[in-house]
This record gives sequence, structure tokens and C-alpha cells, in this order.
Amino acid sequence: MSEKNVGEKSLEFHYNWKGKIKITSDVEINDRSDLAMAYTPGVAQPCLEIQKDINKSYELTRRWNTVAVITDGSAVLGLGDIGPEAGMPVMEGKCLLFNKFGNIDAIPLCVRTKDVDEFVKTVSLILGSFGGVNLEDIAAPRCFEIERKLKEISDIPIFHDDQHGTAIIATAALKNSLKLAGKNIEDVKIVINGAGAAGTAIGRLFIAFGAKNLIFADRNGAISSDDPNSWLTDEHRKLAFESNPNCEKGSLAEIIKGADVFLGVSRPGLLTPEMIKTMAEKPIIFAMANPTPEIMPDEAIKAGAFIVGTGRSDFPNQINNLLAFPGVFRGALDCRASDINEEMKIAAANALASVISDEELSREYILPDVFDKRVVEKISQAVIKAAYESGVARK
Amino acid sequence: MSEKNVGEKSLEFHYNWKGKIKITSDVEINDRSDLAMAYTPGVAQPCLEIQKDINKSYELTRRWNTVAVITDGSAVLGLGDIGPEAGMPVMEGKCLLFNKFGNIDAIPLCVRTKDVDEFVKTVSLILGSFGGVNLEDIAAPRCFEIERKLKEISDIPIFHDDQHGTAIIATAALKNSLKLAGKNIEDVKIVINGAGAAGTAIGRLFIAFGAKNLIFADRNGAISSDDPNSWLTDEHRKLAFESNPNCEKGSLAEIIKGADVFLGVSRPGLLTPEMIKTMAEKPIIFAMANPTPEIMPDEAIKAGAFIVGTGRSDFPNQINNLLAFPGVFRGALDCRASDINEEMKIAAANALASVISDEELSREYILPDVFDKRVVEKISQAVIKAAYESGVARK
Repeated sequence: MSEKNVGEKSLEFHYNWKGKIKITSDVEINDRSDLAMAYTPGVAQPCLEIQKDINKSYELTRRWNTVAVITDGSAVLGLGDIGPEAGMPVMEGKCLLFNKFGNIDAIPLCVRTKDVDEFVKTVSLILGSFGGVNLEDIAAPRCFEIERKLKEISDIPIFHDDQHGTAIIATAALKNSLKLAGKNIEDVKIVINGAGAAGTAIGRLFIAFGAKNLIFADRNGAISSDDPNSWLTDEHRKLAFESNPNCEKGSLAEIIKGADVFLGVSRPGLLTPEMIKTMAEKPIIFAMANPTPEIMPDEAIKAGAFIVGTGRSDFPNQINNLLAFPGVFRGALDCRASDINEEMKIAAANALASVISDEELSREYILPDVFDKRVVEKISQAVIKAAYESGVARK
Repeated sequence: MSEKNVGEKSLEFHYNWKGKIKITSDVEINDRSDLAMAYTPGVAQPCLEIQKDINKSYELTRRWNTVAVITDGSAVLGLGDIGPEAGMPVMEGKCLLFNKFGNIDAIPLCVRTKDVDEFVKTVSLILGSFGGVNLEDIAAPRCFEIERKLKEISDIPIFHDDQHGTAIIATAALKNSLKLAGKNIEDVKIVINGAGAAGTAIGRLFIAFGAKNLIFADRNGAISSDDPNSWLTDEHRKLAFESNPNCEKGSLAEIIKGADVFLGVSRPGLLTPEMIKTMAEKPIIFAMANPTPEIMPDEAIKAGAFIVGTGRSDFPNQINNLLAFPGVFRGALDCRASDINEEMKIAAANALASVISDEELSREYILPDVFDKRVVEKISQAVIKAAYESGVARK
């Protein structure tokens, strides 16, 4: 189906569906004695138990399994700032996937503000209603500040999926690709083109995984600690000091020379066959611009790419967010984690990579299919283990 | 079962239930083409439709059927200020009832603040996620200000059920009781004991229904416009000028003399048989303190009461909130009302009273059973009609 047809068909479906999730009762109410148990007067007792010990809210209400999916509608899909209400079909879709893949109760919410502090205050005041918060489709750099401030004050996990979900999957893809190429992450040169929410988080998780020579580039070229002109935002300044140890400068065409890995979260067509030809041997290309990648896979392979991954389901090696968030939250909820920290993200990436055995692993199969049942199971178990080891599990 | 046993049994049930509602998917996701319709890339199209016309959020997401049940946990049941999280078993119970009786998707939320403006700001910023808001268990007088401020800025109905739901049912009970007693609301003397959230709203709806001689009393006795000592709060001052036309003063025992109707939302045992004996003939007693009424029904009947209603299910004439909110919100959602206004509340009360035919009506059957299927149907139809006539319907 063409992209236009998919959109029209989806619109038709949405008009028929009238919402993709539903909230139903999980308790029978057939007579007055049922009412007395589920509502007044019986319900007073569970209320009093929670008043005595707030942790009982995880046992006496649905909080143990509930995640809020919250947006301000400022960076929805590739559509940009379309407004809170207009983002809701995506939030509902995400909640549907939370349910289908993670067996999680997910509540879609949109917040009518672009002010960081108003957003943070609003979400912080309703945290008692949930076991976790998935931030979604919030524009950079606002999303960084929102996440940081919320994590500081929150007693439940705050996870911006556009950043960290993507980072987990890209890291698993990189790990398996390097294995096939016979390279070590410590030795390779990596260029990340696009230093927004996703690119930043991906680069940082690569570094946490051991990457030593990683360069972030934006539309102005490489971001370098000795070149303040390359710092578009405060976030870019921080990135500059965390990456690019040799202070390389210049355009993508210049810095990609000799690179082992290109990862793009930027714009269609930015990577040319000529650039790939200047890379190190067995170049790994993750062209994640959506829906049209930085280079089309067949073109990249023709230019010598060893492995190509994209965001698309119609090519091999789809880097799809659905591979991470259901398992990450399933794990975080199951051990009642107070946070989703670096250790848990690393564990999730390793677990995701390990779903594919050495026998299965190939240049066209570096990541499992989103419908592979092993994914959520492996990730959630690894996340739980990491949560205990890092001291954030509370159950 | 004794009250203590009900509480213990309910606690046991709650530990087993682990939540009384669940959020599930309403769309099948079995393969990549399902994903393309419900999520990316297809979902972009419904998003763009809502961006063009925000009203489409009622057609392309679950908003058309979604109500948020929101508390600050400050006046939960008879338990008082037990905190936001501790109020959640009641909120979930309410959501369960919204679903079972009104077929409505209801989301339980608690807000961690006692500050009126913070609460209002928080709720106002997430209004785009819902079709309506049911405020619940918020202490007076804060609840009045919160509701007023939210209604001023909200484009969806804001309904504080403890006030208006109770008022609708009490008004229906009064209407049917007066019919049996052969009295007109314009002629009777009514005493409302307890001028908190419920008492205030009940009195005002009685006045909107035609009551001319209605006196509010609090622990200090009658509230009167010529006696500033009787004005405990700003709200009391307003009430003083809306009621008690003869400026009666004194204790309940004094002002109840000659009254046709006593309605208590106060404390157990406040109404004595002696007081009832001083009332007009065929006295109507609504003793709504929970769980122990202002006077027990058998005692009231022995003292000469013509009709007795309480909040309890183990006596006739239960004045139970469940009789109103499912039908009121069902109606408001179905016509996409921007508000639940006075006209809609009056229509709901009339509809509720009319469920019982003249043939069925008796001193022990002034209100329908909560499981009576006619209730939601009748109320919702009447609410829709009133919404159209008063200009707040949008569909």
C-alpha cells in the first residue's frame, strides 16, 4: 500500500474504532453485596490501609500495572508540533501496544502547555495515580529538561521513550552488528547525525556501552568541545564535552571518513553512496529517518555497506521502538522500580541483542521481529535483575 | 454482616482483585499491517485531522466516552483527609460503577495538592484527554472554589458528584415524597442540617425546584442573612442570602418546629423523636449521615415520620449517588455537552423521580433501586434534551 493509502485506510479504521483502548470493570457487580465490597461501605478499609502505608496502593489498586503515556503534542511522529489533542491517536496507539505486548494498563494523557515547569508540575502532582510514566513525542530540547526535572522529584519511573527506547534498540542493533563485523565497540569510530532527543540518547548509551570515538553531528556539522559555534543548545555543549575526543570538525562528508558506524536520526537522503565509500571496511549504516531513511538500503548495500538498518518494516533490520518499551516497563513495574536507570537500559539492550542466537544472527537479521514472544520476556527479566542490583527495586 | 466484617471482607477482596478496573485494547494487533493502521505510519492521518479540527478528537479517539474521576483525597467517604493515594480505591470503585452502569470509560486520578489554584491548573491542563470530569471527595469549602474555577475555563463538563449527584437524587426523593404527602414544594418549610458540599448543593437544587422556605443549619444553628455570626465561611454568607426568608434563628430543635421536611447531611443521632413530633403533619425525613443516620428509620416512623429515606441499602428509600452520575454523564457525553448545567440537573432529578409510576409509588418506594435498568436510560435522555434546550450540546 502506498503511504497515502495507508493514511486514508487508517483514518477510516479510526472513525470505525472510535478509540483503540477501553477501560472496563474487572469485578462483578450484580447485587448490593457486590456493591458493599467494591464500593461503600467496604472500600473504606482498603483506603485506610493505604493511608497507613502508601506502598499498599500497589496492592489494593491497579497502580502496580498502570503506566501513563503523556505528551504535550509538540513532536508527534514526523508531524511536529500539532497540539496536545492531535497527538492523542498516537498516545492511544501506544497504550494499545503497551497492553498487547506488555500486558500493561496504559492511560493516554495530553497536557496543554509548552512551559517546562507547568508540564513538570502537572505531571508531578498526578504521579500517585500511576506506577510509571512514559513521556512521548515532546520536542527537544524541552524533553531533556522535563525528564530531568521529573526524575529528580518522582518516586516512580519516568521514561522518555523517544530517547531511551530508541537508544536501547539502536544499542542492541549495534552490538549484534559489531559481532558480525568482528569489531569491538571500544575501537570503532561512530558518527551520529542528528543531535535531537533520539540521537543524543543513542550516543550516550553507545558511550555507556564502551564507545570511545563517537561524534555527534547536526546540520552545521560535527559538534566539538573546542568549537562553541557548534553548540546550538546547552544540550549540544554538554554533548561536545562527552564525545568527539579528537575534536574533529567539518561536514558529515568530512567526519564520516574512516567511520565504522553511521547512525542517522536526521533527514531523507543525507547519506550518499560516495560517503559510504569513504568509511572504514564493513561499514554499518543505521538510517533511521522516518518514513524515508537517510539512504535507501539497496543503495547503501551497493555502495559497500555491510549492514543496513532502518525504521521501516518493509526492509530487513527494522529498528522499531516497539522492541523495547513493553519489556522495559513490564520489568520496572514487576519489581516496583523507583526509576529506570542507566543500568536497566544497558541490561535491556543486552537482553534484546541476546534474543538472537549466534546461529540465527545474520547481516539481515540483527534484531528480532516485534512479534517475537521472547523479546518482552528477556528484556523484562534483565531489567528486573538490573533494578535489584542497582538498588531501585522496591518489591 | 457487621460493618467491621464488611470492611475486612472488602480488604481481602481488594488484595485479590489488585485493582477493580483494567485498560485493554479494543483493536486487534496480529501483524505488521495491523500495526501500520493502529500505529505508525497510518496514525499520522487521524492526528492531522484533529489538528485541523479539534472536535475530531471525539470521533478519532476514545475521548467521546471518557470521564476522569479526580480527587485530592481530602474528604474520602466518611474518612476525611486520608491523602490522594489512599483515596484511590474509592476512585477505582467509582470508575467501575461508571463502566458497569453507564458504559463509560472512566480514569481514576489523584492530585497531590491541597492548593486550590494548583489543583485547578493541573486538571485544566489535562482536560484535552477527556470528555468530562467527575470531581470526587474534595473537602468543602475548597470544592466549591475548585468547581467554580474549573467550570469557568473548561470546555468539557465539570461535575462534583458529592454536591450535584446527591442533590439530584435528594430532589427526586423530595418530589415523590411531596406527591405522596399531597404537598407543594412552594408551600413547605424545609430544614437542611449540614451546610457542607452536599447540603449546600441539595438546598440550592430544592430552591431551583421552587422551594421558598428553606433553612440551612450548621452546628451553630440556622444560617440567617441578618446574623453574621451564622456565617462560618464565604459560602455560608451566600447561602444566608439565598435562603431562610423569615430569618429564623436558633438551634435545630427550634427551627424544625412546623417544618415539613428535614434533610440531614450531618452526624448520627442529631434528630430526636421529640423534634419530629414538633414538625408539620406528614413529616418527611431524609437522614443521610453515613453509615449511621441522624435518626434510625424505625425510631423516626414511631415518632410520626410519614416518609424516611437514608443513605443505607438495608432500609427502604436509599438515597444512593449511584442513581444519578452514570445517567448524567451518559447523557452529557452522548450530546457532547460543554457543561452540566442547572437545567440538566433539574431534568435529571425529574427523570429520576418519574422512573417510579404513580401506581408503584409508596412511602417505602420513593426512589428506584440502583439496579433498575430504567434509571440510566431515563436520566440520560432527559439530560440530553435539557442540554440541547439550554444550548450546551455540541453534537
